[in-house]
Amino acid sequence: MKELEERILRDGKSLGGGILKVDSFVNHQVDPLLMDACGREFARLFASVGATKVLTAEISGIAPALTTAIHLGLPVVYARKHKPITMPDQVYLTLAPSHTKGRMVELIVSPEYLANGEKVLIIDDFLASGQTILGLVRLAEASGAKIVGIGALIEKVFEGGRAALKPLGVPVHSLACITSMEGDQIVFGEPE
Amino acid sequence: MKELEERILRDGKSLGGGILKVDSFVNHQVDPLLMDACGREFARLFASVGATKVLTAEISGIAPALTTAIHLGLPVVYARKHKPITMPDQVYLTLAPSHTKGRMVELIVSPEYLANGEKVLIIDDFLASGQTILGLVRLAEASGAKIVGIGALIEKVFEGGRAALKPLGVPVHSLACITSMEGDQIVFGEPE
Repeated sequence: MKELEERILRDGKSLGGGILKVDSFVNHQVDPLLMDACGREFARLFASVGATKVLTAEISGIAPALTTAIHLGLPVVYARKHKPITMPDQVYLTLAPSHTKGRMVELIVSPEYLANGEKVLIIDDFLASGQTILGLVRLAEASGAKIVGIGALIEKVFEGGRAALKPLGVPVHSLACITSMEGDQIVFGEPE
Repeated sequence: MKELEERILRDGKSLGGGILKVDSFVNHQVDPLLMDACGREFARLFASVGATKVLTAEISGIAPALTTAIHLGLPVVYARKHKPITMPDQVYLTLAPSHTKGRMVELIVSPEYLANGEKVLIIDDFLASGQTILGLVRLAEASGAKIVGIGALIEKVFEGGRAALKPLGVPVHSLACITSMEGDQIVFGEPE
């Protein structure tokens, strides 16, 4: 998506080690109109997959998943990383490595909101190694739900996440696809 | 707001001890169309306060703050509870007691996104004791920004938050105002 790529070039910062800082419009400060446009684009791309629910992981996935859900008219569930006291004792829980935290984090969904037969569209901010998204896939599958599509705002092609998701056999779309980040240079291209 | 009150009566659960579970449409699963309607209502209520930025706290504040920001056409900043590696070393940080965690949590905002002269509208999911919102107020004031309004989806009048916010002298609006939660009975009324 041209608008997102241009914003990344203008306001994104490559911090080295493959870390892209997009805190000024995605991760800490959010540009709501850009996020709304991204949600509309995801809704268009996944219009025909028959999703019944959008699934994401807190925290940074919430904004793009919510705007996508608004445009699709579907409920959105965000996997929690800490079990709140309002959640039942019996939950779906999996572990996923956190790139930015350098350790494993829990991803937790209540069985109240992911049911057998549900068709799940996963939306997240980044597709890097794919490990967070695969964690969400495990949660959905544990509930008997079926994954019908995966969308990410920003894909870092060089981290190989798309290959990790390929065995799922579902459409995977990213709105900005970064093929290399050498020094300050951010280069966009096609997914492999 | 009628629509939100009706939804709380239908799907909210009083868990005792003043805890209201709204995980099926606000806190874990989100109803995006309801959240969009709430954002539109906040935008209407705060149309004339001259806000330049919406501020909230992760995690549950993100959804209502984002939809409000969409309708106001303003950037939204969510205070982080853990400092990500993309954030500079020098930050605004304050502590606030977490009702649901039973301990103090950090609220952190990067000086990059809260500036002197900014006019800040705070939006959160709950107004209970007001301590999280007062934490956000401290962060904004540390940056030299001015608070121009405070909105919460759900106010628990019996926890006294509104009185705690009164010295700020800014408009405070909640969309559903709960005056008592005895047993299973949720009663709506006017703020005191």
